Amino acid sequence: MTDALALNYAQRLISCESVTPAQGAVFDALEDMLKPLGFRVDRFVSGTGDDNPAHGAPVENLFAIRESGGRHFAFAGHLDVVPPGAGWASDPFVPQIKGDLLHGRGAVDMKGSIAAFVAALHEIPADAGTISLIITGDEEGPAIYGTRALIDHMHALGTIPDACLVGEPTSVNRLGDMMKIGRRGSVNMWISVAGTQGHVAYPHLADNPIPKLVAILSEIEAISLDAGTDWFQPSNIEITDLAVGNKATNVIPAKAEARLSIRFNDLQNGEALVARMQELVEKGGGTLTAMISGEAFLTPPGELSAAISEAVEGVMGITPEPSTTGGTSDARFLTKICPVVEFGLCNATMHKLDEAVAIADLTALTEIYRRVAIRMLGS
Amino acid sequence: MTDALALNYAQRLISCESVTPAQGAVFDALEDMLKPLGFRVDRFVSGTGDDNPAHGAPVENLFAIRESGGRHFAFAGHLDVVPPGAGWASDPFVPQIKGDLLHGRGAVDMKGSIAAFVAALHEIPADAGTISLIITGDEEGPAIYGTRALIDHMHALGTIPDACLVGEPTSVNRLGDMMKIGRRGSVNMWISVAGTQGHVAYPHLADNPIPKLVAILSEIEAISLDAGTDWFQPSNIEITDLAVGNKATNVIPAKAEARLSIRFNDLQNGEALVARMQELVEKGGGTLTAMISGEAFLTPPGELSAAISEAVEGVMGITPEPSTTGGTSDARFLTKICPVVEFGLCNATMHKLDEAVAIADLTALTEIYRRVAIRMLGS
Repeated sequence: MTDALALNYAQRLISCESVTPAQGAVFDALEDMLKPLGFRVDRFVSGTGDDNPAHGAPVENLFAIRESGGRHFAFAGHLDVVPPGAGWASDPFVPQIKGDLLHGRGAVDMKGSIAAFVAALHEIPADAGTISLIITGDEEGPAIYGTRALIDHMHALGTIPDACLVGEPTSVNRLGDMMKIGRRGSVNMWISVAGTQGHVAYPHLADNPIPKLVAILSEIEAISLDAGTDWFQPSNIEITDLAVGNKATNVIPAKAEARLSIRFNDLQNGEALVARMQELVEKGGGTLTAMISGEAFLTPPGELSAAISEAVEGVMGITPEPSTTGGTSDARFLTKICPVVEFGLCNATMHKLDEAVAIADLTALTEIYRRVAIRMLGS
Repeated sequence: MTDALALNYAQRLISCESVTPAQGAVFDALEDMLKPLGFRVDRFVSGTGDDNPAHGAPVENLFAIRESGGRHFAFAGHLDVVPPGAGWASDPFVPQIKGDLLHGRGAVDMKGSIAAFVAALHEIPADAGTISLIITGDEEGPAIYGTRALIDHMHALGTIPDACLVGEPTSVNRLGDMMKIGRRGSVNMWISVAGTQGHVAYPHLADNPIPKLVAILSEIEAISLDAGTDWFQPSNIEITDLAVGNKATNVIPAKAEARLSIRFNDLQNGEALVARMQELVEKGGGTLTAMISGEAFLTPPGELSAAISEAVEGVMGITPEPSTTGGTSDARFLTKICPVVEFGLCNATMHKLDEAVAIADLTALTEIYRRVAIRMLGS
């Protein structure tokens, strides 16, 4: 019975506390589920855990594969979870069934999704094609030594999937109503304008940096980057902070700073945006530093999104909207090696207190994943 | 000998510790100097000393007058001093002669000036005209219950001077090089723009207040208030602070704030400036609060400034520049009742450690004050 399997797997995974970065027991549990199904399981730890907090602690990764020639379909996801926070109705790492729901940290993001995929494997014949699982313990953290290391591992093996489904919780109001075919890129920029401090009564002896910053920001506000595409909304610039920090009413400050966040579609790219803003800011007398969090990416509607749509329609009777909204995910790395679409459980409770999944959704998602895999393997 | 008198009076006043707000001993000392010269001395304490720190503690004020009909010339000043601070070479309240200098808190600002005026009185015949001294113990503090209360007292007596010299230290490099015939006004304004916080990935669900603030500030930066006058530099607007305080790069903030400082000449007035800025800010979607520190005022060059110029030329051989620069003083209150000019000692050490006056300047200032008084009384 695959129904009971997905629920059982989800309970077993939730039971293993695995706040990001995850290692150990939760990977043991997944390995124990996959080995009987004929998978070879490679586990390795990446990351130095050095003094740079941006690098994160050492991270465990798992690559599992069942090879049979033919096409190669991959499922990607993560076993780490965000910290539970205080105030849960029950222990976040002791799965609890309450009515129709299974409660526990990771229920939808995304141990429930991994459980559903493993349950689906029971119904996919070993000779249907090659199937792999690309599972990291660092998606919720800095993601430096997670999926990127798994991709390096696959390159080393010479094993690159033909398509990859990422099991992130993409559904909004009802299982199946949304899938993600891409994401906008994201870049933060810091603008600083230097001046010369002085007394407001003697402005000719000072050089106020604020008017220069205001002029730079006015020019930035007047920019319209693009009008969007068929699959993306228009790229957007937000000024997210202003900072001078001058407590004295009679002092002209020495420095004025601002911060921008740009979310951009695939008509733009991060480096070109940084160069454009840098030129504008420097012309206005300021300096700019930038950090690109991710480039925009898109898997244009094709075989994989059609397979997901068909499966969702068959199981749920609704058609998933192909979306590019929302924050980033590890799909940004996987898009470099093959077509990627994200599809999974309802995200209403993810990262929140009392995260929970509808038990019926686990069953339905198992069947959806089974149909997608079968179709992508060409069986 | 008036030479020795001014020095002696200055030493006696400095010996009375009188950090603002001043009461008691220092006023006793001044009263003791004035009574033998035929002055009637009114002393009274103003101010409630209530819980509002802006109101200040109770303050002593002194009004002394020697009436003889004819014209009425007043000298105004203060006996309170700013706190000495740590690090003086000698006790700030024990006057010390070191070479050509007399050291002590208040030496130039402005016990030395009061001493010079009282010394000058010895050489002004009692029948030359009416002379008064308007002396407060709260000029360096909030100035709520100081000179304003003295003006109320004079109104109650029906005794308003024809002209008033304020003995603030206006000289810069050399005694006599500058007098103040007015001051710019000053107003601070706080602008706040409210928005709706949200995630930068979903700007349509948020309302970023920063672009509105930037547009308001751009409009303010484009304003040219006036081109100045014969006696005043152009009025000037400085943006002195920007504050959002948003630490999160992915958050659109709920509020953005800025602060302005406007120093304005007598073509403007504080209330009209506040009304004008308020309209501009509200049209831009923000709110404005303001605090007017003082209105601009001017005693256009005339009899009093001519008398000071002539006296300085006669004693020092230089012509004082009539200026309207610098911070505020109690002249802002006295200007409402009669022509006012400020003239006094060199201000290089005022409010600083080791405040000191050149003993020769005390002597010269005594003679300058004597000549000004004689001329203003029409003798």
